[in-house]
Amino acid sequence: MSSHIAVYPISSNPPTFGHADILTRAANHFEQVYWAAAINPAKSYMFTQEERMRMMQEYVDHFQLTNVTVDAYIGATIRYVQSKGSRVIVKGLRSTDDFHPEQQQALGNAMLAPDVETFCLFGRPERFQISSSLVRELALLGESIEAYVLPSVARMVEDAVQRFQAQQ
Amino acid sequence: MSSHIAVYPISSNPPTFGHADILTRAANHFEQVYWAAAINPAKSYMFTQEERMRMMQEYVDHFQLTNVTVDAYIGATIRYVQSKGSRVIVKGLRSTDDFHPEQQQALGNAMLAPDVETFCLFGRPERFQISSSLVRELALLGESIEAYVLPSVARMVEDAVQRFQAQQ
Amino acid sequence: MSSHIAVYPISSNPPTFGHADILTRAANHFEQVYWAAAINPAKSYMFTQEERMRMMQEYVDHFQLTNVTVDAYIGATIRYVQSKGSRVIVKGLRSTDDFHPEQQQALGNAMLAPDVETFCLFGRPERFQISSSLVRELALLGESIEAYVLPSVARMVEDAVQRFQAQQ
Amino acid sequence: MSSHIAVYPISSNPPTFGHADILTRAANHFEQVYWAAAINPAKSYMFTQEERMRMMQEYVDHFQLTNVTVDAYIGATIRYVQSKGSRVIVKGLRSTDDFHPEQQQALGNAMLAPDVETFCLFGRPERFQISSSLVRELALLGESIEAYVLPSVARMVEDAVQRFQAQQ
Amino acid sequence: MSSHIAVYPISSNPPTFGHADILTRAANHFEQVYWAAAINPAKSYMFTQEERMRMMQEYVDHFQLTNVTVDAYIGATIRYVQSKGSRVIVKGLRSTDDFHPEQQQALGNAMLAPDVETFCLFGRPERFQISSSLVRELALLGESIEAYVLPSVARMVEDAVQRFQAQQ
Amino acid sequence: MSSHIAVYPISSNPPTFGHADILTRAANHFEQVYWAAAINPAKSYMFTQEERMRMMQEYVDHFQLTNVTVDAYIGATIRYVQSKGSRVIVKGLRSTDDFHPEQQQALGNAMLAPDVETFCLFGRPERFQISSSLVRELALLGESIEAYVLPSVARMVEDAVQRFQAQQ
Repeated sequence: MSSHIAVYPISSNPPTFGHADILTRAANHFEQVYWAAAINPAKSYMFTQEERMRMMQEYVDHFQLTNVTVDAYIGATIRYVQSKGSRVIVKGLRSTDDFHPEQQQALGNAMLAPDVETFCLFGRPERFQISSSLVRELALLGESIEAYVLPSVARMVEDAVQRFQAQQ
Repeated sequence: MSSHIAVYPISSNPPTFGHADILTRAANHFEQVYWAAAINPAKSYMFTQEERMRMMQEYVDHFQLTNVTVDAYIGATIRYVQSKGSRVIVKGLRSTDDFHPEQQQALGNAMLAPDVETFCLFGRPERFQISSSLVRELALLGESIEAYVLPSVARMVEDAVQRFQAQQ
Repeated sequence: MSSHIAVYPISSNPPTFGHADILTRAANHFEQVYWAAAINPAKSYMFTQEERMRMMQEYVDHFQLTNVTVDAYIGATIRYVQSKGSRVIVKGLRSTDDFHPEQQQALGNAMLAPDVETFCLFGRPERFQISSSLVRELALLGESIEAYVLPSVARMVEDAVQRFQAQQ
Repeated sequence: MSSHIAVYPISSNPPTFGHADILTRAANHFEQVYWAAAINPAKSYMFTQEERMRMMQEYVDHFQLTNVTVDAYIGATIRYVQSKGSRVIVKGLRSTDDFHPEQQQALGNAMLAPDVETFCLFGRPERFQISSSLVRELALLGESIEAYVLPSVARMVEDAVQRFQAQQ
Repeated sequence: MSSHIAVYPISSNPPTFGHADILTRAANHFEQVYWAAAINPAKSYMFTQEERMRMMQEYVDHFQLTNVTVDAYIGATIRYVQSKGSRVIVKGLRSTDDFHPEQQQALGNAMLAPDVETFCLFGRPERFQISSSLVRELALLGESIEAYVLPSVARMVEDAVQRFQAQQ
Repeated sequence: MSSHIAVYPISSNPPTFGHADILTRAANHFEQVYWAAAINPAKSYMFTQEERMRMMQEYVDHFQLTNVTVDAYIGATIRYVQSKGSRVIVKGLRSTDDFHPEQQQALGNAMLAPDVETFCLFGRPERFQISSSLVRELALLGESIEAYVLPSVARMVEDAVQRFQAQQ
């Protein structure tokens, strides 16, 4: 297994410029990056798996990240990492609120696979302050989210919001 | 410049098993690691530069880290990193108290050299809870520090403590 | 729009002496304060909108805050603020746990309306430690909540608890 | 009421080595310890009350804690504490994330019963990092949890997971 | 005393774009703002009082803040605030590390003068991450600080650094 | 060694109502409490050892804590605790800022003497917000400190401040 291949898992939606910043920086330091949506079958999402991956691909195309592969997985992150021949998990830290959840995940993963390492990058402050859930909240309120996501992603979020609100 | 070469700077003394844990994990993922003592000429230390580097080398030898070079530098960390042809700074995060100081350093460095990245590793909890300053405090109180440092390092610390207390 | 008019939005229930403390201090510094319940139609509450506003009015009457208007709104807080001709949002900070959620709201609002400012007041420690959710929890357990809310509010909470428990 | 009798309430499931560490240390300092599962009838659990108490008893037996009684209670913790003739609540603190919730509980309890004190113990870092919810998550993903719970408890968790997944 | 007059005290040096951001926003909401350097006679500074005030004035001029007066004071902040006929202290919050020190100051001031209020503004993340002390550190290392301070301030800092290093 | 005897060490000066609150609560739960000033010979204090102990005794007398003994010690806290036949250290937690320093001390002590336990009490919010250092700062500024310390202690602090300022 290789330290040149990194996995950047993402569980929140939609992907924002904050995620894209972490992704771009990871792509700058590893030969191959799998940007992979964690799918929890027990959870209901505002977006379909296909939509999630399409939004992710928009960033990859926009930032021309030729060494990034968009993917999705079910199950333990560590098993996905191993299946890709990787020994590196990349995560972004926005604030101290992320610290203990990420630390716990990293320690838990280190117990399952001691040779896999979690590398944390600090989120760029002007990018990563706004969480996916605030973006969803803004979109549900009918406010613009173009400061936080690509225009094409903003349209996909707006479509999902309309669908979601029609179902209510 | 290469992402295969990492710099793990260390400013606190003595190096503990906590630092050695971060170092060992970094050495497991990068082809070459420079473990470098930051020397601030304006500060007075309990240990000489030579002692600091000797203590560091003890860990490198003990854990047989053949791809680690012990070094020291004066000036901005980022310039040292660049001088080694590296684009990677490795840091350890023990607790939320480390978050903002490390974030600020990382952001400041990213302003000076945008292509150099700071990768943070979470300290293993059973190793990294005890800071160098608590180790010094214990040694000054005459208590054993062998739980936190290599036996050979413990002896060097005890010698420095005796010298320090003789000067008072 | 005016900096003399402030909006103090409240989303949690019931209002406590902690909220009343922030409100009183805001009323002491702005000419007009709108104390406004945020109504999220997608959420189910233990209290009706009418009850929420009645509880809020109890504090306004009790502390004789003649420049405070109790109100409620649906939608983005920032749009409500603008509709009142205000440029000031007042929020209370109880502990570091409030920091990042409030910071994110404030930054998000500053993106939507750069001339509207969020002013945070530190909660008085003897008042604001107890959250609305702990007050609800105590009431559900049948314990007295008179240390945290006005007696008239306590009776309204107890009534809502009885109604809630009868529905279970 | 006596300061020699302590209550260590537990609301999360399954009990881990982290809880057992706090329990063992409490048992080392109080003559009698009630380790009591808080039962919230409004909540649905992965484990039955009987299972919860059986898992707790496994730790008591394993660590031979002869002065610990496993128990369960509905209602306010403070009333349970008083019913046992105790004036001492023992809690574990894992990280700063535990601080404000525990502080709020302790202050709320001090209002209800000023002579009952909450004593907090710091979780041993190598034990208490992993929360019950991460253990459940790992078990649901089919990963081993034997690093975090007794083998006999691990089997009970695996059984509950199978039952839970069959119901989905 | 008036709520239309605000005092924004500053104790760190040099003033950065982060301070200027807080100042500008305060100036946008209060009729008159005193931006006042806290002078502690027992402390030795890298800058003289005159230099500190000149650097502050540079920002006032640059951002054309016609309702801001640069000032300095010795003694308790609250007494200075009162001497200006003000009832408002403005402070910036960068991160959770600022929370408890600022809370303590605010509570202490509220004890001394209950009608004076401390209003906190969240620092804009892209501006306020870098502290005055990191700016000083960078300048001492010979690195550019123009990302953090006005060019004219940068020159004054560089002059002070040369003077400081000549004295060593 | 006994769990009925507790040591409450204090290193900051002057003792405040916050310390007295922790002390009183400890005295309510242990048969014997040693309230002991930690003396670090390498540090210079505003107060002499005799003054520190006299201030502490003022609280013991005022609150009529008949089972509290005021004391002082040099060296490792844990050795003092053992010398008193105690197995219990009591500490107060004011805020999350206290968490990691106290955790580190507790873990370090547990390494030195595994059967000695550190019990933390949450500081009462209305008492313990104000640190000894803020009290000193207020006194140095000539402001009243009677909200934070006993009147007799306030006079001793004022005397020390006069002496300190005469020396400058």
